[in-house]
This record gives sequence, structure tokens and C-alpha cells, in this order.
Amino acid sequence: MRCVMLGGAGFLGRHIGRAMAAVGYDVWSVDKSTVAPQGSAPWLSGEVLADCFDVSSWWDRCGPVDVIVHLASSTVPATASEDPIQDAQTNLVGTLRLLQGLRERKAHPRVLFASSGGAVYGRPQSVPLAETHPTLPMGAYGVTKLAIEHHLRIEEAVQGLPYRILRLSNPFGEWQRPHGIQGVISVFAHRALHEQAVDVWGDGSVVRDFVNAADVGRAFVAAAHHTGASRIFNIGGGTGHSVNHIIDTLELLLGRVVERRVFPARPFDPPVNVLDIQRAQDELHWKPTVAFEEGVAKALEWLRSEP
Amino acid sequence: MRCVMLGGAGFLGRHIGRAMAAVGYDVWSVDKSTVAPQGSAPWLSGEVLADCFDVSSWWDRCGPVDVIVHLASSTVPATASEDPIQDAQTNLVGTLRLLQGLRERKAHPRVLFASSGGAVYGRPQSVPLAETHPTLPMGAYGVTKLAIEHHLRIEEAVQGLPYRILRLSNPFGEWQRPHGIQGVISVFAHRALHEQAVDVWGDGSVVRDFVNAADVGRAFVAAAHHTGASRIFNIGGGTGHSVNHIIDTLELLLGRVVERRVFPARPFDPPVNVLDIQRAQDELHWKPTVAFEEGVAKALEWLRSEP
Repeated sequence: MRCVMLGGAGFLGRHIGRAMAAVGYDVWSVDKSTVAPQGSAPWLSGEVLADCFDVSSWWDRCGPVDVIVHLASSTVPATASEDPIQDAQTNLVGTLRLLQGLRERKAHPRVLFASSGGAVYGRPQSVPLAETHPTLPMGAYGVTKLAIEHHLRIEEAVQGLPYRILRLSNPFGEWQRPHGIQGVISVFAHRALHEQAVDVWGDGSVVRDFVNAADVGRAFVAAAHHTGASRIFNIGGGTGHSVNHIIDTLELLLGRVVERRVFPARPFDPPVNVLDIQRAQDELHWKPTVAFEEGVAKALEWLRSEP
Repeated sequence: MRCVMLGGAGFLGRHIGRAMAAVGYDVWSVDKSTVAPQGSAPWLSGEVLADCFDVSSWWDRCGPVDVIVHLASSTVPATASEDPIQDAQTNLVGTLRLLQGLRERKAHPRVLFASSGGAVYGRPQSVPLAETHPTLPMGAYGVTKLAIEHHLRIEEAVQGLPYRILRLSNPFGEWQRPHGIQGVISVFAHRALHEQAVDVWGDGSVVRDFVNAADVGRAFVAAAHHTGASRIFNIGGGTGHSVNHIIDTLELLLGRVVERRVFPARPFDPPVNVLDIQRAQDELHWKPTVAFEEGVAKALEWLRSEP
């Protein structure tokens, strides 16, 4: 069994790749960047440095493909809102090029798509957010994710291409870079490690859903083998954590106070955003296994060891 | 008050333009084609032959704009499914370019977008289809329409751009060309006029929603002036008509039998697809005024008079 990860060189790609390899897949990465600069990814069978949406650039190299893990994205929510045209042209049109490439090859690997539980639902009308919650994204990032979800549904109906959609909350863990504009836990952990203040908007009571990246890896394995009728699964931490709780956890683990720089609350931040993961528990037989504090400790440890 | 119709040279543009002019708007068309080749559109204040998504190509010519009627589309459902990449690149990315052009000019005209009641809902889970019905489009055309709807909602929330969405059923009437792949009434009427057989898939019992284009024009006028909280309105004929009923109506109007060529039923055709127009009645104070048979008679009359 072979699995090709599109956008496999990122933080999530490492976790998902390891998890897929652990259950016996030959795992390949297709990405513009390398996963394993010094042979540092022993679980990886091979990688192709290429535009992952251009199927012709990797198809023959990777061999017969059973599962495609689609993690490729050129944007994060903030950059997609800044330039929605670029977001649509790269991520949506790119995915359409991928689907066209598979059609042309009459190939039917199962496509596992990393969608966004934080972006597709929009402002929560009730929490926790189930997969049946209305999808009213509040940014271009979510609109594009949702359009890709629709195209996958149509591609299965018309062409028989199997797929599963994983609507992830906020993944965190080892290998998450602390210098991006996503990943509040890594950013906070890195700043706290270096005795820098962390930025808090409002009173820090805002609650978000964080899911350990190792658990995300196991969710993709479960989705690769799922045989039921559902196509969309929320993948979250099961409970929410406030910004204050993240900082408290870091203080506990580091044994010292973390300085907070407080800014005015942002009116567009919903107070609570937590995914309902009951469907994934029932149908994927998946649930988070890494306790929040343990996950934060591992992320801290990795950041400490990073050169 | 000025109204610019993007894609105004089409069949619907003529009806909407006349309706907007009738209530006092200066109506301009921006389209690659001309509306009025021989000064044949006296209701038109002016037109610009240009790419309507490139705001810079028409903005200064048209003057201050109060209402933009967005009818521009390079595809119909069948062509969008054949080439989803082209559909996304022209219609979705085009609309994003339009929104960017308005942002750059800090302009806030009301945008009235012609969406598709036949495409955005997908297979009906219940009929008639209300605006609250799930949106699970079964083709790229509907995915693109839906993505544009989301971007308009976000643009209002973030930039204050006002908008209304009109989810049209199947418009028909004068000026609808009978040689396209849309517009079953015009196609059937034209063939019947020329004593050619019409093509029927299955037993002709499939029911669809048809709305007279003159009524669509009045719906856009109502949406231009609407002040309530709703943003999305179904615009349909109020009741459905079977394919057999269309042919019966033509036979009655022509006073002779119309030959039917019968093909096997298409499994992907839902048996009934009719829009619930209660919201438009309640909030736009709009309802269809042209009886179905009268509308078909007018379409026939126009086809007869066309060179």
C-alpha cells in the first residue's frame, strides 16, 4: 500500500507520514521543500520535489498510489484574507488540477483532505460544532476549503474517486515552527522558553480547540481505512482550552511566570470555538490520546532541542 | 441613481436593465458584447465593451455607481462541469477581482448577484426548496456560485459592501436564444415553431421551476431597494411545470401536435425541483406576475419575429 502526501514536508506531513508508515504504508512526500534534509525521516520511502498539484511531475516517480493525503496549501487564514485571488488560484484551482490529473489517469486513490474546522463553520451558532453545523466561513481560507470539499464530493459522485475530509481544529506539537502566524501554542512556548512576553488579546478567556499532531496522524490512518457512509469528520482535541490555560500550562512546565502583554479584545474573535468529535469517535473509532499538558510538554521539549 | 450591469448584454440583462430603467435608474451595461447594435435598447444610458471584472476598464466611464447587477458568467452548468478549472478561474477569480477593484476605490455600491437556485442546493431533500435548504451543489457551476455568495457575505462583514443574492430558477422569455444548451422553453418553442421534434428524457414527468424574465427584472428592482436583514432570495415561478406540460402548452398555443423524441430517463435528474419563494414574497414584496402560458406565448411571439 502506498501513500503520497501532497505538501508532505510541513509540520503535519511529518506526523501523518510517520503514522501511515507505522501501519505499513510506503509513504512518499511531494512538496517544493524536502522532508528529510539529512536523511532525518527514516519512515519516508521517497520524496519528489515538485508542484504537488501537477500530477505528471510525480505520478510516475511514486508508483501506484492507494492513498493521497492532501495537505498542500499556500496560505493560512490571514494571508488568504489578504489576497483571496491568490488563495483561490493556488489552492482551489490547484486542487482542480490535481483532480483533473487523476481523471486523465483513470486513477482512483482515496483522497484524504485536510480541511479546517476553525474556518469552514464561521461564527459558532452553538458549541461544540458538529459536522452538521451551517458552513458560513468568515474568510477566504474557509471559502476555499469548503469549495474543495464540494468538488471532492462531486468527483466521487461523478467519477468514483473515493475521499474523506478531515476538518482539523488547531494542530500543535513537535516540528511546528514557532515563527509563523499560526500555531499559538508553539509561538507562546517559544517565547516563554526565551523569556519573552506573549501577546494576549482581551482577558485571555477565549477558548479554542487544540489537537495534538500525533493524534491527527492517527486520525488520517483511521480515515484511510474507514468504510462507512460519512465523508466529513471533525478532528479536534475534544475539549477547549483558554488562552490563559495555555499560558498557565507553560508556567507550570517551565516553573516560572510568563509575562503577558495585554491588547484590547478583538470583536471578531468568537468567545468559544470547539469541535464536536463524536462522529470521529463513533465511526473512525478515533479519539485524542495525548493529554493536552503532555502535548504541550512535548512541543516545549522539541523547541528546546531545536538548533 | 446609476446601475451598472456586468454581463448586461445577455438575455437577462435586457429584462433587468429595462426594469431598472423603468423605476428611474440610469442603466449601463458592461459586457464584451453590445446590448444595442442598432440603438435597439432605448432604456440604456450607455455601455462599455470591456472585461467586466476589470473595474478600471469601466469605472471612470460609467460614473458614480449605486447598484451593480452581477450577471457575468462565462459558463453554464454543462460547460462548467466540462472544465471546472476554467469556471473557477473566470467566474470565481473574476468576481474576486471585481471585489478587489471596489475595495481599491473604497466604493460601496449595492451588488445584486444572480446566483442559481437550480445549482446551489443540489439534489432536493424536500420540495419546495427554501433558502435554508442545505447547499450541496452537484456540479462545478453551483460550487462557484456558492463560493461567490460566501465571498460577498464576507465582503459585507469586513468591508461594508452591501449585497443581495438572487437564486434564480430557470428564467425564460423574449431575447432568450434558442440555440444554447440552456433554456428548455426557448429551445422547445423554437423547434416546435419550425416543426422539428423536441427531445424528452424519460416520460416527461420531470418537474422544473421556470420564472418569467420580466418577473426576474422586477425581482432585481425589489432587491435594489430592500432594507431588511435577509441577503439571499429564491426567485422562481412559484409552481413547477413538467416537461410534458411545456409541450402541451406549446401545442395549445400553436394549435398542432409537437413531435417528441423520447430518450431513456437520466438517473441524475431529480424528479422535482421547485423553489420556495415565500421569503421573496414576504420581504421583497415580489411575486411572479406573468402567467406561465402567457410567458410561453410571449417567448413564442418573439421567436417568430426574430430574423
